[in-house]
Amino acid sequence: MKLNPYIAALPAGYLFAEIAKRVKTYSAAHPDADILKLGIGDVTRPLSRYVADEMAKAAAAMGTPEGFRGYGPDYGYEFLINAIIENDYKPYGVNLDVEEVFISDGAKPDVGNLQELFSPDAVIAVTDPVYPVYVDSNAMAGRLGHYEDGKWSKLCYLPCNAENGFVPEVPKGHVDVIYLCYPNNPTGTVLTREQLKPFVDYARAHDAIIVYDSAYKAFISTPQVPHSIYEVEGADECAIECCSFSKTAGFTGVRCGYMVIPKKLTGDAEGKQVSLNKLWQRRTSTKFNGVSYPVQVAAAAVYAPQGKKEIQESIDAYLENARIIREGLEKAGCTVFGGVDSPYVWMKTPGDMKSWDFFDLLLTRAHVVGTPGEGFGPSGEGYFRLTAFNTKENTIEAVKRIVDVL
Amino acid sequence: MKLNPYIAALPAGYLFAEIAKRVKTYSAAHPDADILKLGIGDVTRPLSRYVADEMAKAAAAMGTPEGFRGYGPDYGYEFLINAIIENDYKPYGVNLDVEEVFISDGAKPDVGNLQELFSPDAVIAVTDPVYPVYVDSNAMAGRLGHYEDGKWSKLCYLPCNAENGFVPEVPKGHVDVIYLCYPNNPTGTVLTREQLKPFVDYARAHDAIIVYDSAYKAFISTPQVPHSIYEVEGADECAIECCSFSKTAGFTGVRCGYMVIPKKLTGDAEGKQVSLNKLWQRRTSTKFNGVSYPVQVAAAAVYAPQGKKEIQESIDAYLENARIIREGLEKAGCTVFGGVDSPYVWMKTPGDMKSWDFFDLLLTRAHVVGTPGEGFGPSGEGYFRLTAFNTKENTIEAVKRIVDVL
Repeated sequence: MKLNPYIAALPAGYLFAEIAKRVKTYSAAHPDADILKLGIGDVTRPLSRYVADEMAKAAAAMGTPEGFRGYGPDYGYEFLINAIIENDYKPYGVNLDVEEVFISDGAKPDVGNLQELFSPDAVIAVTDPVYPVYVDSNAMAGRLGHYEDGKWSKLCYLPCNAENGFVPEVPKGHVDVIYLCYPNNPTGTVLTREQLKPFVDYARAHDAIIVYDSAYKAFISTPQVPHSIYEVEGADECAIECCSFSKTAGFTGVRCGYMVIPKKLTGDAEGKQVSLNKLWQRRTSTKFNGVSYPVQVAAAAVYAPQGKKEIQESIDAYLENARIIREGLEKAGCTVFGGVDSPYVWMKTPGDMKSWDFFDLLLTRAHVVGTPGEGFGPSGEGYFRLTAFNTKENTIEAVKRIVDVL
Repeated sequence: MKLNPYIAALPAGYLFAEIAKRVKTYSAAHPDADILKLGIGDVTRPLSRYVADEMAKAAAAMGTPEGFRGYGPDYGYEFLINAIIENDYKPYGVNLDVEEVFISDGAKPDVGNLQELFSPDAVIAVTDPVYPVYVDSNAMAGRLGHYEDGKWSKLCYLPCNAENGFVPEVPKGHVDVIYLCYPNNPTGTVLTREQLKPFVDYARAHDAIIVYDSAYKAFISTPQVPHSIYEVEGADECAIECCSFSKTAGFTGVRCGYMVIPKKLTGDAEGKQVSLNKLWQRRTSTKFNGVSYPVQVAAAAVYAPQGKKEIQESIDAYLENARIIREGLEKAGCTVFGGVDSPYVWMKTPGDMKSWDFFDLLLTRAHVVGTPGEGFGPSGEGYFRLTAFNTKENTIEAVKRIVDVL
C-alpha cells in the first residue's frame, strides 16, 4: 500500500503541540506553579446567553416532528447566508449573491480544503510569519517542494517585520495564489484599503487568486481598515474570503465559518476557463454534508440585536485586555505591534533573544505561556505572540510578571 | 491561475441533484400531484427526545462560564470515544485503544477525506453498484483515469448482482484500496463473517487496505452478519472502519460520525513504513478543528440507556417499513433484495426496464420517487432503490401505488 509521501514527509510537530509538551513537562516538575496562558488563540468567555439559548432551542426542537431537520443544504441554510450578506457585507458596500457564500464548520477546514481546487503545480505565496494551515495544507498536496532550514523550497515568502512596518510587498515574480490574513494572525497588524490595493492589482495582472482570511475582523476599530477585501475595487474578480464565528462570537467549540467565492472568479483547467464557485460546489457536495442545524441557528443568532449586543461586550473585553498587554509592555520599554484591531500583541523579544528561548524564560521564570514567533515562519524569529483571550485579572497579572523578568 | 483539472473534468451532476431536478420539473407541471419520496437516504423521524434534550442542555451550558467549551480535542472528546468503544465494539469482542478512534462530522466527509492518505497512483477497487463518494473523491484526486461509457478507466469494479447473490469476488490483480459498505448502500444486502474473510485475506496478502463503511450497522438483525469488520480475524492489520450516527440515531442534520484506524496499519511512504493512524492524526490536526461540543454530547447520549431505547424504536419502525416494501413487492411478483438488515430495498426493474425509465414511470404514473440503480454504477442498471425512511402510512400507500402501475 503506497501512501501520500507529502504528509509523511511533513516536518514533525504542530507548533501548539510542542508548546503543550513544554508546559506539561514544566508543570509536572513544578506542580505548584500557577501558569497563566496567553498562548493559544482560544477564547475563554462563554457564548452570548442569547446565542446559546437559540442553539439550545433548535437542539430541543430536533426531538419533535415539527422541529426536526435531516440533511440540510450542502452549502448552508439560506437564513444564515442571508444574515451574513446583510450584516457582514451590505454595510460595507459589498453586494453578494446567496450562491456566493458557503457555510462550513470553520475557517481552518475551509482554508485547509480550498487548496484542493488548485493545480498540483500552482505557485503559492504567504506572508511571513503566517498561520501554519496555509502552508501545511499545501505542503501535504506536494506543492511546496522540500523543507530545509525552516523554509519550503517552492514557497514564496513575503516577509512582514518591523523594518517594513508589517506591510508586505507583492511577489516579485509570478505566483498563482496569495494567502493574506487581516487583521493578521499572528502579528495583530492590519492593512488599510490603500495597502491592500497593490495585492488586488497584482492578482488581476497576474491571473492570481488571493485567499483572504478575515477571521479576526470583529476586532477592527480603526476606520481605514477594511472589514472585507471586497471593499477594494476589483477584488471580486480575484479574491476568495474566509471568515469564522470562532473569534467573532466565541464559536471555537461550536464550529461554524463561511467562505465567499464570487461567481466572477475563474481559472484555467486544461485550457478551459472554469468557475471556482462551481468547482467548490462540486467539491463540497461530494465531500461535505453541511453544518449541524442547531449550530447554524446559533450562528444566525449572532446577527440578532440581542446577539450583537452581547457579542460586542466580549469583543470589547478582549480588546481591553489587548490594550493592557500593549501598554504595559510599551511602558516597560518593549517594542510591540498589533493589539489595536486585533486580540494579538506581537512583541520584539528583548535583546533579540531567540523566540523559543524567550518562551522558556517566560514559562520558567514568569509562569506565563505565549507563542514563539519562529513557530509561525522564519520572519517570526525574534518576535513573540501574546493573546488577549484570558480574563482581565489574569492579563494584568501576566503583564506584571513578564515586565518583572524583562 | 491553474486549477485542479480532475474536479473540473468530473462528469456532471450528482445523482440526487438530477433526481431533484426531475421531481421539481414534474411537480411544477402537476402542482396537485401528491408525490411520495422513497428516494434519498434521509431519515424522517425526529431525534430521540433524550438525545435532543442532552444536546440542548450542552448548548445552553455553553452560555455559562462553567459549561463553556472552546477548542475541543481535534480527534474528539474521550467521553464519546469511550462510549463508542464500550458499546459499538466491546460487545462484539473487538478491543480498541482511545487513540484508534477519530470523531468527525460524518462518514461522508471521512470517506471523502481519507483518500488524501493514499499515493496519487494507488489502485482503487469498489463494489458495483456503489455509494458515489468513494468514486468521486478518488476521481477528484486524479486516481481513476478517464471516464467513458459510465466507467473510470483505472477503477477496479467488483460487480454485485442477482447472479452472484450480491457477494462480490475479490479483485483478480493487485489493488491498493478496497471500499466495502455493509449493510450495503444501495443494495441493502449484507455479507456474513465468512463472506468477508476472503477480502481480509486478500488485503493481507496484497498489502492492500480495506475501507469498511458500516454506516447502516444499526439495522443488522441477522446473527451471522458482523457489526464490524474487526470481527474477522486479521482485519485490524488491514482495515479502516467508518461509521456514522446519521442512520443509527437520525443525525443526518446533526452531523457526527467516527473512523477507526488501528495502530497496526502501516503503508509505504517512499520506502519507509508509516503508521496510517499517525498520518491521519497529522492530516486531521492540520485541516480540522473537531466536532461541535453539543453534537458530541448528543452522540454520547445515544449510548445512554434511555437514548438506546428511543433509538431502537426508530430503527424498528424503519425496518417495519422495509418489510412492508419487500413483502409488498414480492407479493406482486417482483424480485427484491435487501431490506432485512437494512433500510434499503433493491428491486429488479420489471421486464429489464432501464432504471431511469422506471424512475420516470413511477414518478409520473405512481407519484413515487425512488433512486435509479444506474446512478450507483454500471451494475446498478436494471435495478431500483427504495428506502424505508418515510412514515408507515406513506410507505404502505407508496407500495400500493407502485404495485398498481407494474
